[in-house]
Amino acid sequence: MDNYEITFKPANCKVYASEGSTLKDAIVKSGLDFDFPCGGIGKCGKCVIKVLEPKLKVLKKEVEHFSENELSEGLHLACLTKIHSNMTVELNVKKNADYNILQSSLENDFTISPLFQKLFIQLDPPSLKHQTSDLNRLKEKLILKNSKYKNIKIGISTLRQIPDMIRRADNKITVIMDENEILGIESGDTHDKMLGIAFDIGTTTVVGYLMDLYTGRELAVSSLLNPQVKFGADVISRTAYASQNENGLKLLQTTILNALNKLINELCKKSNAKKDDIYILTVVGNTCMHHLFLGLTPKYIATVPFVPVINESIRLDASELKLNINPNGRVFALPTIAGFVGADTAAVILATDIDKSKDIKLAVDIGTNGEMVLGSSKKLVSCSAAAGPAFEGAQISSGMRGANGAIDHVYFRRELTYTVIGNEKPRGICGSGLLDIIAGFVKVGLVNKRGKLLSPDKFTNPSAKKYSDRIISYNNANAFLIVPESETFHGNPILVTQKDITSLQLAKGAISAGIKMLIKNLGINLDDIKEVLLAGAFGNYMDPHSACEIGLIPKELGSKIKLVGNAAGSGAKLALLSESEFKRANRIASKVTYVELGAQEHFNLEFARGMQF
Amino acid sequence: MDNYEITFKPANCKVYASEGSTLKDAIVKSGLDFDFPCGGIGKCGKCVIKVLEPKLKVLKKEVEHFSENELSEGLHLACLTKIHSNMTVELNVKKNADYNILQSSLENDFTISPLFQKLFIQLDPPSLKHQTSDLNRLKEKLILKNSKYKNIKIGISTLRQIPDMIRRADNKITVIMDENEILGIESGDTHDKMLGIAFDIGTTTVVGYLMDLYTGRELAVSSLLNPQVKFGADVISRTAYASQNENGLKLLQTTILNALNKLINELCKKSNAKKDDIYILTVVGNTCMHHLFLGLTPKYIATVPFVPVINESIRLDASELKLNINPNGRVFALPTIAGFVGADTAAVILATDIDKSKDIKLAVDIGTNGEMVLGSSKKLVSCSAAAGPAFEGAQISSGMRGANGAIDHVYFRRELTYTVIGNEKPRGICGSGLLDIIAGFVKVGLVNKRGKLLSPDKFTNPSAKKYSDRIISYNNANAFLIVPESETFHGNPILVTQKDITSLQLAKGAISAGIKMLIKNLGINLDDIKEVLLAGAFGNYMDPHSACEIGLIPKELGSKIKLVGNAAGSGAKLALLSESEFKRANRIASKVTYVELGAQEHFNLEFARGMQF
Repeated sequence: MDNYEITFKPANCKVYASEGSTLKDAIVKSGLDFDFPCGGIGKCGKCVIKVLEPKLKVLKKEVEHFSENELSEGLHLACLTKIHSNMTVELNVKKNADYNILQSSLENDFTISPLFQKLFIQLDPPSLKHQTSDLNRLKEKLILKNSKYKNIKIGISTLRQIPDMIRRADNKITVIMDENEILGIESGDTHDKMLGIAFDIGTTTVVGYLMDLYTGRELAVSSLLNPQVKFGADVISRTAYASQNENGLKLLQTTILNALNKLINELCKKSNAKKDDIYILTVVGNTCMHHLFLGLTPKYIATVPFVPVINESIRLDASELKLNINPNGRVFALPTIAGFVGADTAAVILATDIDKSKDIKLAVDIGTNGEMVLGSSKKLVSCSAAAGPAFEGAQISSGMRGANGAIDHVYFRRELTYTVIGNEKPRGICGSGLLDIIAGFVKVGLVNKRGKLLSPDKFTNPSAKKYSDRIISYNNANAFLIVPESETFHGNPILVTQKDITSLQLAKGAISAGIKMLIKNLGINLDDIKEVLLAGAFGNYMDPHSACEIGLIPKELGSKIKLVGNAAGSGAKLALLSESEFKRANRIASKVTYVELGAQEHFNLEFARGMQF
Repeated sequence: MDNYEITFKPANCKVYASEGSTLKDAIVKSGLDFDFPCGGIGKCGKCVIKVLEPKLKVLKKEVEHFSENELSEGLHLACLTKIHSNMTVELNVKKNADYNILQSSLENDFTISPLFQKLFIQLDPPSLKHQTSDLNRLKEKLILKNSKYKNIKIGISTLRQIPDMIRRADNKITVIMDENEILGIESGDTHDKMLGIAFDIGTTTVVGYLMDLYTGRELAVSSLLNPQVKFGADVISRTAYASQNENGLKLLQTTILNALNKLINELCKKSNAKKDDIYILTVVGNTCMHHLFLGLTPKYIATVPFVPVINESIRLDASELKLNINPNGRVFALPTIAGFVGADTAAVILATDIDKSKDIKLAVDIGTNGEMVLGSSKKLVSCSAAAGPAFEGAQISSGMRGANGAIDHVYFRRELTYTVIGNEKPRGICGSGLLDIIAGFVKVGLVNKRGKLLSPDKFTNPSAKKYSDRIISYNNANAFLIVPESETFHGNPILVTQKDITSLQLAKGAISAGIKMLIKNLGINLDDIKEVLLAGAFGNYMDPHSACEIGLIPKELGSKIKLVGNAAGSGAKLALLSESEFKRANRIASKVTYVELGAQEHFNLEFARGMQF
């Protein structure tokens, strides 16, 4: 029986819930937009809510996720909170690093002032004594609003709408301005209706954030798999597809544009928004994704000397890309830094303010490529290390993406234990799981320095012995059994092979060598780095201890690691909400010095060293 | 037998001609582009050539058309010059007022520097040490060419072409710039290939001038009837069509755009030019033609308080209007001054330099509307008088356009004589013919002061008597027989009716009242006017004495009249050849004070007075 009334703030939405059910169940029932990233199993600590009434006891599991301060404020995890009475719950609580960044930026550094402005004006009607053209009467009022509107431009299609529109609207109109260009006019006062979407186009995942550009609030988030994966899993294979097939580039572009239109639909549905109220899209992505999105060939990024077509930011009409938002809407692609350091990295810097920092910081965004930035307000250097797809669970014998059924964390304690996303029977291992496994191998002594998985007779560490049974022979080499076939979803064993270990070694070797090269190029020492910011999905899911254990991140920096969530997405949101932040992205991109690893002396040596454990 | 060799300069084209044939025949045979406006009958005096060898005798008819100086230089009319020997003939001779204006402007006031610039540059190839984006390598060279290219813009479609193009072209490219925007790039050095067309869109006639923007030379001229006439002969009926029919505006726009595409084709054919080499179009026309061309509704021009959508000049992509020139080409519409004083008038001022003149000048361009400008560098006032179509031969009982078969001049001397365009049997009377006839009526005393065509018994002037037989009764009023049915092309008599006289009275009343209102608004006296510039087809064909006789132009100004040809077209050409002249057009348009005749005190009185003879 649903005998408790649960009130959700700020929507003031009420639902009825039964004794002992969770707040998660009630939230799902309410239909309110709320994410449970780990599927509601108390693991990720992201379904943060604030219980306003009554005061609840703190659960053991919650202690891991909250500070004392937060606990005393009434923060809880919705998935763990059981209902035993009527409750009033605040949903609009932001806690994790991702949101923290945006919030702190919002509070400290910028005011909401998007790339477009909407101005409500009332024109003077014409008369025989005031025979001024329609456009001039409009300009007269604009300049009164702001003297910066001196040299107004207007496109012919907007101009065509003006005469009938202003008369129908009885001279009361809202003008949409992009800098000094009139992009459109609307009947009546609509100045508070302006939405935008920040898109983060990853090689694997595309995320869209629908933002209210008047209030600055995030209205909805949606994501989907980048459908370009059918043309290739990584940027190199997609570039090959675009270059070698007639219309290949066009096809890849259309594919991502269709995906964005799908996200636009979803975001509008989720938040009950109208597409016509969406005027601005900001886009970040690696340079290849950026080029494919714009229909620019990525061909010359992929071959020596790896040059992109363009670095600086681009503004273009959404209609040119057939993106279904307001017909006068525009797309703003953030600037890229180099062929393999993209607009996503520019956005990471924007969101994390490294370019303003007095302290030297290192930001690492690990995907198929590891993009890294090191520096402070004085100087920034960046590079891209070809990590390969191991951290995304691809090209690993039992690898998979971080989806339901993926082993995401593995612990070598008294015995080998693991957690599975969605709390299902395991189907495979995702990047963070693989990292934990290899870190475990190193710690326990199951591999040697060069990464060879030892046979039990070669074990030197006594605690390795208990895993002897898990060492099996596979393709003329050793492999390690993580889950026997009887316990998996599909009835096949889940293994880590010697080849998998090598793949991970290559990945971590590239990234650790990249970090060394940046340090060398900036002319600093390791301990000059005050903070290591891990951005992106993998960076936020992986266990930092494991990363240090295998040397992906230098051990000395272990205590300086901070998770910053999807900083690229946060940067895209900042650029959406604030014209000056968008402009700052351009300054950032032109300020960063790109370090081409392949052209660096000693890189290959460092790479080889970095592969060792 | 074709036994004489005729060499035409500057093309150095040779043709063979027979004894006694004319140079006109030889020119036609050569296929060279050359106009014979009156059809080659020695009337218009426009087929001017210079005979370099041998020296020829001057013909009687040529004396009328040339100054002594010009005759001594060897100028002749091609249609009258007979061939009796080998000859060398210069075709590139410009004489008439139209060309004089442009030439004098060319010599005195402006250097060729069109709205677009084409720059040949050679990019530095990229390398691992110089991993700059394609666009940046292009920008680096542009800024070396001219420091004004600091904030370069580029459209996405051009950007998409760059990477493959620069590599195919081995880094040698020509960049097309419109201000600081890269409009396109071409392979190799094409900087000397840039053409443009100046269009003068009249209510009745559309003219296109194909110009070489590198040399400044006019390559070809073509004209055609404005095909919008099928939707209405004048601006009011076309405006009604555009406003009252669904898609009416679109249809009228498409009609004129198709006509311009037809002209583009013709001009290219005539001069063997490629459409892809045409980058710039300039357009002038009255405000209604201007709006219809751009797809802007003319609805509010036609109703009180007569306001246009826009006055200032517009630049837009030729592709937006589906005009078939280079895909990166642009259209520049000159500014309009008011609802009934259009871009054509701005162009007339541009071509005649009234805005720079110390002396006060009056420019009159008579069509369906008479557009007039009065003033000097200090102040300019303008107005538009609704003359109606009488001067274009429309809505006149025997009226017709100034085409073959039209009586274009009539002389009341010992007997009534007339000339016919094309030297054919007469078909009707065009505007200049009607003007001569009415002027004759006034001079001879066939009409009274109020314009009543008198019966022979009321004649007071003895010399009127000889025309008694020509006064006939028609629709309960008197009419005047110009050509009896036996002498006409169609076997119907050619008459001037009382209604025709009234139409012309209304027209001349409106224009003369307009001139008076301008004089009053500028606060000057009639004799302060130092020059009267007659522009447009009618102004250049009409007999100035007749115009003064009937009071269309005040008699006191008779000696100050100067014919300036198609000054609107000349202005469009100037704007095409020179960015600064185009900009001057904007300054002119914003400087001219528009006088709304309907809102003027005493206008109706002056109008009524002006109708009298």
